[in-house]
Amino acid sequence: MEPRTYPEFSTHYPLLLTTFMKRPVRFYPQETGVVYRNPDSGQYYRFTWSEWYERVSRLAGALGKTLGVKCGKPGDRVATMAFNHHRHLELYYAVPCTGTVLHPINVRLSLDHIVHTITHAEDKVVFFDDSLLPMVERIYEKIKHTVEKFVYMSDAPGRPQTSIGPLYEYEELLAGQPPSFAWPNLDEDTPATLCYTTATTGMPKGVMFTHRQLYLFTLHTMLGRSWNSDPASVHLGESAVSMINTPLFHIHGWGAPYMCAFAANKMVLPGRFTVEGFCELTQTEKVTTSGLVPTMLAMLVEYEELGKYDLSSLKNVSIGGAALPLGLRSKAERMIPGFNPISGYGMTETAPTTIVSFIKKSLAHLPKEKLDEIRVKTGLPLPGLEVEVVGESGRSVPRDNETIGEIVIRGPWVMEEYQKDPQKTAEAWRDGWFHTGDMAKVDAENYVTIVDRMTDMIRSGSEMVPCVLLENLTATADFILEAVYVGAPDPKWGERPFAIVKLVPGAEEDEEDIMKFLETEGVAKGKITKWMLPDYVLITIEIPKTSVGKFDKRTIKVRLDEFLAKARRMHEPPKSTKRR
Amino acid sequence: MEPRTYPEFSTHYPLLLTTFMKRPVRFYPQETGVVYRNPDSGQYYRFTWSEWYERVSRLAGALGKTLGVKCGKPGDRVATMAFNHHRHLELYYAVPCTGTVLHPINVRLSLDHIVHTITHAEDKVVFFDDSLLPMVERIYEKIKHTVEKFVYMSDAPGRPQTSIGPLYEYEELLAGQPPSFAWPNLDEDTPATLCYTTATTGMPKGVMFTHRQLYLFTLHTMLGRSWNSDPASVHLGESAVSMINTPLFHIHGWGAPYMCAFAANKMVLPGRFTVEGFCELTQTEKVTTSGLVPTMLAMLVEYEELGKYDLSSLKNVSIGGAALPLGLRSKAERMIPGFNPISGYGMTETAPTTIVSFIKKSLAHLPKEKLDEIRVKTGLPLPGLEVEVVGESGRSVPRDNETIGEIVIRGPWVMEEYQKDPQKTAEAWRDGWFHTGDMAKVDAENYVTIVDRMTDMIRSGSEMVPCVLLENLTATADFILEAVYVGAPDPKWGERPFAIVKLVPGAEEDEEDIMKFLETEGVAKGKITKWMLPDYVLITIEIPKTSVGKFDKRTIKVRLDEFLAKARRMHEPPKSTKRR
Repeated sequence: MEPRTYPEFSTHYPLLLTTFMKRPVRFYPQETGVVYRNPDSGQYYRFTWSEWYERVSRLAGALGKTLGVKCGKPGDRVATMAFNHHRHLELYYAVPCTGTVLHPINVRLSLDHIVHTITHAEDKVVFFDDSLLPMVERIYEKIKHTVEKFVYMSDAPGRPQTSIGPLYEYEELLAGQPPSFAWPNLDEDTPATLCYTTATTGMPKGVMFTHRQLYLFTLHTMLGRSWNSDPASVHLGESAVSMINTPLFHIHGWGAPYMCAFAANKMVLPGRFTVEGFCELTQTEKVTTSGLVPTMLAMLVEYEELGKYDLSSLKNVSIGGAALPLGLRSKAERMIPGFNPISGYGMTETAPTTIVSFIKKSLAHLPKEKLDEIRVKTGLPLPGLEVEVVGESGRSVPRDNETIGEIVIRGPWVMEEYQKDPQKTAEAWRDGWFHTGDMAKVDAENYVTIVDRMTDMIRSGSEMVPCVLLENLTATADFILEAVYVGAPDPKWGERPFAIVKLVPGAEEDEEDIMKFLETEGVAKGKITKWMLPDYVLITIEIPKTSVGKFDKRTIKVRLDEFLAKARRMHEPPKSTKRR
Repeated sequence: MEPRTYPEFSTHYPLLLTTFMKRPVRFYPQETGVVYRNPDSGQYYRFTWSEWYERVSRLAGALGKTLGVKCGKPGDRVATMAFNHHRHLELYYAVPCTGTVLHPINVRLSLDHIVHTITHAEDKVVFFDDSLLPMVERIYEKIKHTVEKFVYMSDAPGRPQTSIGPLYEYEELLAGQPPSFAWPNLDEDTPATLCYTTATTGMPKGVMFTHRQLYLFTLHTMLGRSWNSDPASVHLGESAVSMINTPLFHIHGWGAPYMCAFAANKMVLPGRFTVEGFCELTQTEKVTTSGLVPTMLAMLVEYEELGKYDLSSLKNVSIGGAALPLGLRSKAERMIPGFNPISGYGMTETAPTTIVSFIKKSLAHLPKEKLDEIRVKTGLPLPGLEVEVVGESGRSVPRDNETIGEIVIRGPWVMEEYQKDPQKTAEAWRDGWFHTGDMAKVDAENYVTIVDRMTDMIRSGSEMVPCVLLENLTATADFILEAVYVGAPDPKWGERPFAIVKLVPGAEEDEEDIMKFLETEGVAKGKITKWMLPDYVLITIEIPKTSVGKFDKRTIKVRLDEFLAKARRMHEPPKSTKRR
């Protein structure tokens, strides 16, 4: 017999998410690894790493044996409609590590888009939260021919009265399986996740990521962080305690479930973000590290009970995702320990992180005001990633912090293709570079600043409202000729939708009629959600256009105050607790 | 035309050493990246990252165009016989990044073994230091049919008078090439290096590592470091300034050339280790991070001029590689800032790092004495690596810190095979695990402690003296019946060779005759080097043996003082400056 070598355990040792999960279980089996607090009842659920791992193992057993999910390249798709709790985190590992594909559904999308992603992904099983039962019931007729099984997840025992079926209950599934599982030694190119973009035009696009891609995304992101010389960014290593506020249904929870597990950082899960949950969990779990969008921060600094909590454990509270109003910033600097406003850039197609807030060692000595200026630049590319800003010629723009070009990217965690969409894939991948469509400039120190990102998106809280979705819907009203949407500044949400509408000649409808139309044709039919409804509506006789006849959003934004002054305020922005 | 995707820039983006080199050049082009101080002249050579990169690019051009080296899988082998200077570091990148294979020769091996590695590796080109010209001249006749070209490297201009040829001069090669080079987008499985073990029996064995392996070795090692909660180990990130004392001809310089480049840490190269070089470079370059073996440390604390230097920049001076005498330790704690004795375990076959000194977050609060006890355990496995200690059954030993088993390893940077040696490969790789042959125990916290490592090696300074090499040579003397070598403790070198010899009946030779034999048959013929000669020789009538008739080294070690008392001291240990 020929003596054999073992490339699968050496030169080709597979890079798998399984490795991340096993490390804390081995080194810290008896330490608390995962904490979830139910935001409504205030009840805590705590798991040591070995308890959590046992639950992941039982779930893995149930996937194949009870639910009949099949692995492969790609394996069957398993969807989640869930907030941030231990069960969602268990799915994050059990599904990919058995060789099947996790599809975390963004439950903030319109029902139409949710139905589209489920049927497009061909999800075999959907795991959903008790609080989302009404949503699943509304779409059930449209997905029941695709989805073969449903799993109900709740902190309360029992099953709901529902016509959805066949319906399984999460804890029963786990109870029926052995406490250990033999994880397969998968090929590292096995797809692990399927994520959908927030569509600016048309339907959300699907992107698959392999174990290798997510493994390398995680390692490089962690290294990039550990190299940051920002004096405000304390290096904590294994000792970090991380509260994951980013919804796990947003692209890989920005990597937190992978990074925290590998580094054995305790993960603190608040269900959905609430100010009291944030404060109480920080105090009881001694949270060191957290990320907030400005909206959450605004809610926090306004919270009357804030002073009653001990938040002194906080070392890094990254504020990202949108511009930070100056008043909010100075309040937060006084009130939130470890407050650290940062910037960054990423997208579904890049898993997501590509450019991060980073203070170079050569600049770390600068005074705070200068560092603050650098922190609000979009940042520097992560190690291991090629990022260029190119002009029309395809050549890099000069590093003058002035010339604008398109960001193009390539690297180990950039998506290979849009699922079932070779046309869109070909538009994005040209000449060996992934074209982001976002415009930026670069300075002499290599800092990238995005100048024109997603002009067609309104950023409300941590969610993106696709303008084109609203525009297309609004324009279907037979009394409306043209409609354009832009973001109006909002002290709490950052931005809220503002509709500028031109009626058909002779039409006598008013702003209330437009709202009524959006409610009946949009919200009631699942095309948009209630919180996408505009706060302001302006009926005008002429919408600014560019020379080629497109809506001139740039001009609208420059003259925004003037337009807003003439607009009608339709209703108060949504209540925060209902929204997050 | 079918729209194309770009897996080579996304899902299969290759993990290449090229990526490490490009990062500092991009972000810190004008900062000093590499500093070399000639240990004899005291002359400094400084290079910004962009100057250094230009030299690497020129060298890459010369490899293909002037020297005719061919890339492939594997590409041609290019050997170095060199100490730690910028040129060696240039070769570290230019050779692998052009798709050819770097073979750094351990110039401490015997000439026989050096000749063997060159012919076994089929080295096409040998780059060598001016100081090693006599060594190359001595082996020239034996390697000239293998090696096609030689390159002479010197800080002084001009070429030597020598019969070696064809001979090129390094700086001339660079001058003849353009300042930029188009690096190939290699397959990540392209071999990058070829390293040879220090043979315990027989000849050194060759091990190839691919770009992927070295890339993953580097990332995981850096992450493992950054997670360490040891309060004595200061996290410096990009700001570290690293003095590389480990010879670059020892397995990948323990990863320093890769880690430092990727993190843009300034690399300070002392040529070979000297106390004045260490002190002066630390002061002028503000070195923060350095590694020393106990021998270097002993030289340092005895250095009369030590107090004249400002060593306050030192934050991490890792002392590893051998047991640290207590007296030396307490002296060093007072005298060397950032003094941090650590342990660790690795071997040529594992690139080398596998188990490292690591304080878990759960133990970081312990008092210093307790932490010191943990630091001298061998350590914890690096993240991403599977390490087990197994009994004869193949099952893991209990974590009782008592039961002894063999260390077995697998992971992304473990070697796949011994070059041209399927037999040895099959002995090491069994049942999907690489068998190290080293014995260890494991405690409840998962700390591994090596109990019986390389009994057949004498550790003199940072070099290993293979006992079997000396034993086999000695036993060829016709007046000697049996010979066994063990290490005798030495205050400066840690250990020095001690020969215990049984003469053939009636022989009248004495200890001097044995030394004479070793000089003429060993040193003069290139089988061993001068510094391997024993410091002590004992002629005895009976050497302790085990039940199966092997030399009982364990018994000899237990009764070492008794044997040493009867032995004859042959000469003083070698002078330090000549040796390192």
